[in-house]
Amino acid sequence: MIDNNVLDAGVDAALPRGLDELAQMVAIPSVAAQGSSPMVPCAERVADLLRARGLEARLVPTDGGPPVVFAEDRSAGVDAPTVLFYNHYDVQPAEPLDLWDSPPFELSVRDGIAYGRGTSDDKGHITCRLMALDALRAANNGRLPVNVKVVIEGEEEVSSVHLPAWIEANANVLHADVCLWEFGGVDEGGHPEIICGLRGIAYFELRVKTIAYDAHSGLGGSLFPNAAWRLVWALSTLKDADERILLPGHYDVVKPATDYDLELLAALPSQEAWLKREYGVEQFLGGATGVEYQRRAVFEPTCTICGLRSGYQGQGAKTVLPSQAMAKVDFRLVPDQDPETVRHALRAHLDAHGFDDVEVVYLGGQRPARVDPRHPMVTLCARIAREVYGTEPSLIPLVGGSGPIHPFVVGLRQPVVTCGCGYPGARAHAPNENLRLSDLVLGARHTARFLAALAAGEGGLQGNA
Amino acid sequence: MIDNNVLDAGVDAALPRGLDELAQMVAIPSVAAQGSSPMVPCAERVADLLRARGLEARLVPTDGGPPVVFAEDRSAGVDAPTVLFYNHYDVQPAEPLDLWDSPPFELSVRDGIAYGRGTSDDKGHITCRLMALDALRAANNGRLPVNVKVVIEGEEEVSSVHLPAWIEANANVLHADVCLWEFGGVDEGGHPEIICGLRGIAYFELRVKTIAYDAHSGLGGSLFPNAAWRLVWALSTLKDADERILLPGHYDVVKPATDYDLELLAALPSQEAWLKREYGVEQFLGGATGVEYQRRAVFEPTCTICGLRSGYQGQGAKTVLPSQAMAKVDFRLVPDQDPETVRHALRAHLDAHGFDDVEVVYLGGQRPARVDPRHPMVTLCARIAREVYGTEPSLIPLVGGSGPIHPFVVGLRQPVVTCGCGYPGARAHAPNENLRLSDLVLGARHTARFLAALAAGEGGLQGNA
Repeated sequence: MIDNNVLDAGVDAALPRGLDELAQMVAIPSVAAQGSSPMVPCAERVADLLRARGLEARLVPTDGGPPVVFAEDRSAGVDAPTVLFYNHYDVQPAEPLDLWDSPPFELSVRDGIAYGRGTSDDKGHITCRLMALDALRAANNGRLPVNVKVVIEGEEEVSSVHLPAWIEANANVLHADVCLWEFGGVDEGGHPEIICGLRGIAYFELRVKTIAYDAHSGLGGSLFPNAAWRLVWALSTLKDADERILLPGHYDVVKPATDYDLELLAALPSQEAWLKREYGVEQFLGGATGVEYQRRAVFEPTCTICGLRSGYQGQGAKTVLPSQAMAKVDFRLVPDQDPETVRHALRAHLDAHGFDDVEVVYLGGQRPARVDPRHPMVTLCARIAREVYGTEPSLIPLVGGSGPIHPFVVGLRQPVVTCGCGYPGARAHAPNENLRLSDLVLGARHTARFLAALAAGEGGLQGNA
Repeated sequence: MIDNNVLDAGVDAALPRGLDELAQMVAIPSVAAQGSSPMVPCAERVADLLRARGLEARLVPTDGGPPVVFAEDRSAGVDAPTVLFYNHYDVQPAEPLDLWDSPPFELSVRDGIAYGRGTSDDKGHITCRLMALDALRAANNGRLPVNVKVVIEGEEEVSSVHLPAWIEANANVLHADVCLWEFGGVDEGGHPEIICGLRGIAYFELRVKTIAYDAHSGLGGSLFPNAAWRLVWALSTLKDADERILLPGHYDVVKPATDYDLELLAALPSQEAWLKREYGVEQFLGGATGVEYQRRAVFEPTCTICGLRSGYQGQGAKTVLPSQAMAKVDFRLVPDQDPETVRHALRAHLDAHGFDDVEVVYLGGQRPARVDPRHPMVTLCARIAREVYGTEPSLIPLVGGSGPIHPFVVGLRQPVVTCGCGYPGARAHAPNENLRLSDLVLGARHTARFLAALAAGEGGLQGNA
């Protein structure tokens, strides 16, 4: 049995090195969305940090994207549990640069908070895992008590385009008993959050081109098809004003929230008043309130127009009949919806309504997936959180955002749990992204103690490598 | 009786001075849309050119816009007919400047064509009228054979915002037997066009703001009203896919084309094949063809989305729920529709459909008006055109564009006729706007001979000053 106090002290001792290594990672602007960004050097740096902990690490190519860093340490043996860390080494663009108080690609620690792009999302979480490994090794005679596999991709911020295929192709080396997700942390009240699922997404651009070039509205109004009108009419067939999505069969495979899900939602700290105040709305759509607002926020599929563009957008009047129009539309998906199904249904629906002139460009998607909130791994992760944070964790059955969770949960049949160092003020994706060092320490303790508990046979695991 | 040959020779003789004065006007960049433009100096220059012909000219203020140049010569006496010239001294912006082959505000004559902003629209037409006055005076012992009134406004290119009120306020000095419109000229085949009416217009910006700022689509999709969706749903209630405008009562006051209108349309040179080829459409809306396409093109009201803007318009996917959305919408109006009625109907319609969150900003409008194509003034204008151009004129009952015709035709009860120096290649509003000198001469002859015919008692006029 590894002693928790020794483990906690080991995390504290690992902090200086962790921060130094975080600074090394932040210094490499691995912006996946920007073609010239140094993705491979960042992957190599991350692999080196894993090798320094005794893991075998290598860069594995994807089919056209940046490499995945894959590493493992199986020295705990075939009877010990195996944990897989999923993280990513790519980051969001730093723009707008003038809103940063210190250079985005230079770690700056002020008043116990580390600033820089990726400090939270997700290089800080890589550091959190590395510190946990350091502490575990120090408390266990230099050896890891569980087998560890690490998957750190380079495209999470651009929809993990190549990850699902990569996982499928490498499934034989990715077996594990549990997957630690790339994020985790606390809410506004300091309660740790255990997240059990992510919605999926299907993102489309709808394009219409009706005539060779824009026409004078006095000439063309009665003669030429107007791209903006075609788009408006097509969009209006996708969702009615009661927020019901009108694609045939769209709700057929939706798994409604269970009574237990609703219990969990009801137990969460309510953000209702804050959200209404922050966004300046008197009520939510459909007048939803209480647990019903929480249910709708995550368990209902959505169809969001994210952008519209056509014709003249400047000041005043220009009498033009637009030849082209464009809409960006995202569908958030709940289990067991699938972006490919939505893609085909959208095309068929538009055709059936006479909109075969509306081009549908699929910009990417992710499948939704959930872990049963009563899964023993979730229960164990929550119990450890309660001990580390000294407060009741929030068990969240599903969140509204999306991520590449499906290949792990369904493809690899791994329960996913979350522990980490995020908080609501982390400004992920925004200027002055940051990491509170106290959160980093707590997240690393949570990670380390969770792995130690697995090694001690908690969570009901039989040995499995 | 004024001799036509003498008149024609007088026009020829007036050309050098006309071109010199056109150069003076073109050199003043009187761009109404650009606040810093020298509107008053241009108005003064135009007034001086009229004074040089013996007219009393003055600048009359409008209620907030550039002054109107008003001039008159009533020396023909109370028994002679009175003609009113309507023109404008403002011009469109010259941008994009790099597409001009010579400086836009410098008259350049090359191969019998004069280039420069305003050479056609409308300073060239002012020159056309001045040359006609010169020729009439030279052929009539230094005196004009008819009374002449001149209204030259400075806001035609920005919807003649102040002109209707100005006309109403000055109606007592604007009496005339006939109004010569600001434009005229020939079609592709060299046939002079006599235009008997203009559609009206009502132009709106629809704005929606639902939440304080853009939300993450994963958070807000089920909770917050989406400005883009609100706009799409609101727009889709305005017109159905069969192009039927759904504002209550919108068609109640529409005067359909008469059998004679349809006869006139059928006699026009068909642009059907050219339009389809030019705009790359296989058929017009509703499959209209022949005289039915010509009827729809001008005698049907339209509702055109001229622009759309909301949320993210860049490359790729951004998962955002837009807080704001905007559409530009123009309604083309046919007699006897009225922009004020449309304005009120639009607000009431949106409210009735639950869209009181959609703000309606009225950006301006003009009322439609027509002159009976069998009016003696139209018949006379066409007969003179046949003589001057040596070919059959096209009598056009209504055109699709809009202009401030209503205050003259309905407010002042003046028949409006068109004669002038335009042609389809004039590039009005575009770079390399131009005027063929042969058209200028023909347009001035048409103008001069028309006035001489009026003076000779043709057109059935009793003396009226």
